[in-house]
Amino acid sequence: MELFDALKIGEALRVLKENLVGIKPKGEEVMLRDAYGRVLSEDIYSPEDIPPFNRSTVDGYAVISRDTFGACESLPAMLKVVGEIKMGERPLFSLKAGEAARISTGGMMPENSDAVVMLEYTQPLEDGTLLVERPVAPGENVILKGEDVRKGGLVLKKGHTLRPQDLAALAGMGFQKVKVAVLPKVSVISTGDEIKPPGEEIKEGEIRDMNSFSIAGLVLKWGGIPEIFGVVRDDFNEIRRSVSEALKISDLVVISGGSSVGTRDLTVRVLDSLGSPGVLVHGIAVKPGKPTIIAVVDGKPVIGLPGHPVSAMVIFEQVVRPILSWFLGRPEDYGGLKVKAKIARNISSAAGREDFIRVKLEQRDGELWAVPVLGKSGLISTMVESHGLARIAPEKLGVKEGEYVDVELY
Amino acid sequence: MELFDALKIGEALRVLKENLVGIKPKGEEVMLRDAYGRVLSEDIYSPEDIPPFNRSTVDGYAVISRDTFGACESLPAMLKVVGEIKMGERPLFSLKAGEAARISTGGMMPENSDAVVMLEYTQPLEDGTLLVERPVAPGENVILKGEDVRKGGLVLKKGHTLRPQDLAALAGMGFQKVKVAVLPKVSVISTGDEIKPPGEEIKEGEIRDMNSFSIAGLVLKWGGIPEIFGVVRDDFNEIRRSVSEALKISDLVVISGGSSVGTRDLTVRVLDSLGSPGVLVHGIAVKPGKPTIIAVVDGKPVIGLPGHPVSAMVIFEQVVRPILSWFLGRPEDYGGLKVKAKIARNISSAAGREDFIRVKLEQRDGELWAVPVLGKSGLISTMVESHGLARIAPEKLGVKEGEYVDVELY
Repeated sequence: MELFDALKIGEALRVLKENLVGIKPKGEEVMLRDAYGRVLSEDIYSPEDIPPFNRSTVDGYAVISRDTFGACESLPAMLKVVGEIKMGERPLFSLKAGEAARISTGGMMPENSDAVVMLEYTQPLEDGTLLVERPVAPGENVILKGEDVRKGGLVLKKGHTLRPQDLAALAGMGFQKVKVAVLPKVSVISTGDEIKPPGEEIKEGEIRDMNSFSIAGLVLKWGGIPEIFGVVRDDFNEIRRSVSEALKISDLVVISGGSSVGTRDLTVRVLDSLGSPGVLVHGIAVKPGKPTIIAVVDGKPVIGLPGHPVSAMVIFEQVVRPILSWFLGRPEDYGGLKVKAKIARNISSAAGREDFIRVKLEQRDGELWAVPVLGKSGLISTMVESHGLARIAPEKLGVKEGEYVDVELY
Repeated sequence: MELFDALKIGEALRVLKENLVGIKPKGEEVMLRDAYGRVLSEDIYSPEDIPPFNRSTVDGYAVISRDTFGACESLPAMLKVVGEIKMGERPLFSLKAGEAARISTGGMMPENSDAVVMLEYTQPLEDGTLLVERPVAPGENVILKGEDVRKGGLVLKKGHTLRPQDLAALAGMGFQKVKVAVLPKVSVISTGDEIKPPGEEIKEGEIRDMNSFSIAGLVLKWGGIPEIFGVVRDDFNEIRRSVSEALKISDLVVISGGSSVGTRDLTVRVLDSLGSPGVLVHGIAVKPGKPTIIAVVDGKPVIGLPGHPVSAMVIFEQVVRPILSWFLGRPEDYGGLKVKAKIARNISSAAGREDFIRVKLEQRDGELWAVPVLGKSGLISTMVESHGLARIAPEKLGVKEGEYVDVELY
């Protein structure tokens, strides 16, 4: 089985999507204080105006702005102080022409007032007269009712990942809870007779399981809950038992390992034996990561990642992360920040294949360069040393030194 | 108290640091599966070579490379297959000139072999002869012992924040646990007579507490554990009681609110009453965020953030985040990704003051532009709509349209 149906990543994901019915975000209500980083599963319209009243942004005197027009130090406007506004209370008076009221930052503007003169530009006299040494424009030092958020306005969209400022806006609108997508559970299985969990003694010929940990980390990073199953031997029944168990408790199963033809075929046989449709895609047109398996069992996606640690991470980002996004209802291309940088050496690629090159970013004379970190895809150190992945599109035969590439940062 | 000692942010942080003795990361051991996003509190040297033996990266035949030199389809090299290498086991034979052994991806290379010919370039005959149709170079398709990580080499440095690939490398080196910095506990207090928690009815003149939620979100984002204390009235005794309580259970206390002179002074009096040295800095040269308070009580930092939601977030990033970094032992300037972009309009600034401008990023003709999102610092919507903060350095009087600025992304 050396020839794969080499679908491009996007095509492979479409095939998967067509075979998944009913993969859609489940919503749950969480307290606002627990909502950081979660994905909204409803559009948020503001039930009220923020602020709910005209509000001073400084300490000073609420005035009718036209009373201050032309005021200067040598010829201050003279106003009459008629009261002081208490924080958190509605002023019981309204201003008339020639009047002013003491107000603090955040205080509610009295009726008819339309601006605040800052304290430092005023001089209160003992008889209750206020000298105003600068004019204020209408609206100056005031946040108008609804100026921050308008009642009924769409503030945050379904599928948006909540940042600290979004939580503040939600709190401001009076939300105590918010409806977010349930975090998908992802089972992580490693296979391979030569793979041992860290902590176990290894003998010659054996190496330690790395993929379980990078994959569990990626699941956390991109909004899922990982369940590490550990290492399973290259045995039909053992793999089958683990995958069946994993399917029971999770929304998505990720198996890594099986980079040799024999173990890849074993995984394919297991997945086909567990139910229809089974394996949909075996091999995609990407480097590194060609021996990727995409299957659906019991209506749930099962992804077989290549065993090489770099390939496993690249395919996670390109295949598993979009699936997590489906579960969470966020944009499919949600991911790390993309920057443009000039590639620092020629890299060749095959037509029809998408290539991902590990790069370090360097500033040279104010320009951003992407310096390829060379090394085999079995070397995790190349991921540790690099800052992101540069992409060479399938239609390209490579990139020339100095050409711009898109780099997605870790 | 209208005149502040307007220290620059860096100066204010230095004053704080001088008054904090013994603020250093506490370490704790965590399981590798719980270590994602944590900050290493020890340098990691590899206790062993990764891989611990020469390893094939493909399916094929282990050979002595010089036996294949000059081989081609029309004149293949003829080798003798002397065995098959089992996964996870040490081969019990070594290769002699003219010999080959079947090997799978990840298999241990037999002694004397130095390259692997891929399966697709070989033809095994029934009599045990192998035709090799392409030459391999020494080391081809092999990861050498220690090629990924060299025994004794420094792989990860103290202060590094663990990414998925770092977890994989740690697992590969045999670490089951790793020593990371204890997450600092941060108490979050909001003050203001006009502030009500979300969920409570508000009457005219009152608004809802937003800062508790943005600040708790920022604490989570930057590696702390937030404890939301809620809203405290502008009352000396009530604030004092809350701050005392908070100091007992946390490493760092963040109070927001009190943008009016009266409440700022109240916070200062409370902090000075709680112990020496009390308030160290009152007012910094930054916009927005001037009315910032920096204090040390009981050997712990207490930061008073301005009440305006934007100012509170800006000062958190500039002042509180570096303090969290001290606790975590990571670089003080650890933060969001910084990009260079051209500012889309003239912005003026005062000399000696650092300005932070909310900006949206836009690609125009392949160039990155930072478009200022205008609006008062009381408007949380400006933070929701923007992508990051552009910085104008204290020595500048502003920036001109088209000038490059540094933008730190949220």
